[in-house]
Amino acid sequence: MQKGRLEAFSDGVLAIIITIMVLEIKVPHGETFHDLLPLVPVFLSYVLSFIYIGIYWNNHHHMMHTVTKVNGAILWANLHLLFWLSLVPFVTGWMGENHFGPEPMALYGFILLMAGVAYVILQNLIIKSQGGESLLAKAIGGDIKGKLSPVLYIAGIGCSFVSNWLSGLMYVAVALMWLIPDKRIENKME
Amino acid sequence: MQKGRLEAFSDGVLAIIITIMVLEIKVPHGETFHDLLPLVPVFLSYVLSFIYIGIYWNNHHHMMHTVTKVNGAILWANLHLLFWLSLVPFVTGWMGENHFGPEPMALYGFILLMAGVAYVILQNLIIKSQGGESLLAKAIGGDIKGKLSPVLYIAGIGCSFVSNWLSGLMYVAVALMWLIPDKRIENKME
Amino acid sequence: MQKGRLEAFSDGVLAIIITIMVLEIKVPHGETFHDLLPLVPVFLSYVLSFIYIGIYWNNHHHMMHTVTKVNGAILWANLHLLFWLSLVPFVTGWMGENHFGPEPMALYGFILLMAGVAYVILQNLIIKSQGGESLLAKAIGGDIKGKLSPVLYIAGIGCSFVSNWLSGLMYVAVALMWLIPDKRIENKME
Amino acid sequence: MQKGRLEAFSDGVLAIIITIMVLEIKVPHGETFHDLLPLVPVFLSYVLSFIYIGIYWNNHHHMMHTVTKVNGAILWANLHLLFWLSLVPFVTGWMGENHFGPEPMALYGFILLMAGVAYVILQNLIIKSQGGESLLAKAIGGDIKGKLSPVLYIAGIGCSFVSNWLSGLMYVAVALMWLIPDKRIENKME
Repeated sequence: MQKGRLEAFSDGVLAIIITIMVLEIKVPHGETFHDLLPLVPVFLSYVLSFIYIGIYWNNHHHMMHTVTKVNGAILWANLHLLFWLSLVPFVTGWMGENHFGPEPMALYGFILLMAGVAYVILQNLIIKSQGGESLLAKAIGGDIKGKLSPVLYIAGIGCSFVSNWLSGLMYVAVALMWLIPDKRIENKME
Repeated sequence: MQKGRLEAFSDGVLAIIITIMVLEIKVPHGETFHDLLPLVPVFLSYVLSFIYIGIYWNNHHHMMHTVTKVNGAILWANLHLLFWLSLVPFVTGWMGENHFGPEPMALYGFILLMAGVAYVILQNLIIKSQGGESLLAKAIGGDIKGKLSPVLYIAGIGCSFVSNWLSGLMYVAVALMWLIPDKRIENKME
Repeated sequence: MQKGRLEAFSDGVLAIIITIMVLEIKVPHGETFHDLLPLVPVFLSYVLSFIYIGIYWNNHHHMMHTVTKVNGAILWANLHLLFWLSLVPFVTGWMGENHFGPEPMALYGFILLMAGVAYVILQNLIIKSQGGESLLAKAIGGDIKGKLSPVLYIAGIGCSFVSNWLSGLMYVAVALMWLIPDKRIENKME
Repeated sequence: MQKGRLEAFSDGVLAIIITIMVLEIKVPHGETFHDLLPLVPVFLSYVLSFIYIGIYWNNHHHMMHTVTKVNGAILWANLHLLFWLSLVPFVTGWMGENHFGPEPMALYGFILLMAGVAYVILQNLIIKSQGGESLLAKAIGGDIKGKLSPVLYIAGIGCSFVSNWLSGLMYVAVALMWLIPDKRIENKME
């Protein structure tokens, strides 16, 4: 089984997720900049989620590069990842419309956490399918980012009930950590 | 005629179907977990439909693997399948918003049944186009799953007027039956 | 310039058009089959438009098969075709919600007419780019269907102010005429 | 890293942007042509934005033709461009619904300006990655269009507070300037 359609389908779903999120920014009735003010939290949560989906697309792209053959378990683990990511537009909208209230922020972190877990499951299945000399296993090495992310997500969920600033800081920190280009797989490929 | 664009178009339509379903989960106005409670049935029906579309994508992927040449009848049989699947977001939303009422559940089963019938038509056209030594015909063999599914859908439609639990059980059973990775085509290909 | 991305982009736009049309079938609040009755005209217009977009995708697929090189004029003629097709969901919704009233039916025919004109422009540009020995020119021959379609569309627009049944008949007739698999290009390719 | 998935993902996002814009043209309740009148500004802004997205897709297509290898910076610069373009449906809807009021027109110009800046950043990163003998650098030459566009956008933003006609003229002028097929890259490729 080739990976072509898995990549095409994932690209399609991620492209749609990233684009339909913008539909949550509803066109206001007034025609002044003042009328846009209530949309600022919705816009900020859109920016954060856009970056997250961008990171997932980017890393998915890198990870799939190491794959030559796809099996049924990988197909379903990939759909499982897309499932959690498909809920991102919903939680983004809920968080933005409620001005980063505690419970929306906690749920946002929870969905990110589940997407992160789904990504690790997919990564492990690919490594397993590649056997002892797994290119992906070498490329990710100790996978510090992968291990730190769930810790920060859980911290962010906990913080959301204390301070939404602190919670948001955690979610932004994870995004920034992954934004730094991941040279590992690129280097190993060469 | 090559199968490349048929796969690309089907991937696009399935990716959009799976993603726009999430738009039926409307962002609530309140900001507590309590405000999410009315969304639980909508969410559950989303999960079930997500799995169904995932199964169709997966099986479509496998089936198309055996295909080398596409004719006009196959193109239209494929569009016919996509037509019924395109109605899944509608029935999913209707079923979820009405808390699994009898008539929405019956219609949900009917749409699944029609999609199943459309899939079998497509499968038969492909087998016919491959002639006597059809790889797909060998791969599906007795096609027990394919024969059992419509029986369970019809049972689910009937049950929906008696007990929505029983009806839901039928639909979940079909999904679980197909979720088990289908080794048939994979094995035959090797 | 290769045709790969032109096909991919067109597939994407057509896949989205065909799928977002279903969003016009709004989930009703009631939970009985009776509550679905007002949706019947919306559903019927969805079916007709689904078939039309399917026909365009199908014919686009065939036509592009004869193309080896794409120029700027072809790219823009293709976007022009996609523009008119992108308005199909709007007119489909308007026609369906107003139970096939005269003016929505006339506009529906007008959009189909413009899409047909855009298709012919694209076809002519491709033939021109292929020079004297154009494969596409040979394949379409006298192009009877292409010449009859605008006549029927205009007849349908005119009829819409007299009888919506007659007008609908015209639009269905064009669809049926094209549904019959077009062997011309398939044969010429072989 | 190959450019295939970057093109596929960008095609997907651009195809969705261009198509969901049409969702801003809400189906009116009345059934006469008169009921469509309030939609005229929404339609006109849709046409303009459709052309802009078409231009971006077209130019992106040309630019990517010169690329053989993609790095992390190019991936993110591409996502940055898609981010600003993803806001086009929102500003298009806001401008259309408010009949080209001053502040929506200024914001429209601002989003176009930012998309233009993002495009130049992406272009520069590609040129840099190609080293001294960059094909893209030769192809764009003095890049007069690229340098004139931001000037016209800024002029359009300024004019929007004086006359929406003048402002609209600026935005239309930029679109027309780019609509003229860009022979530069095509020629250099040959």
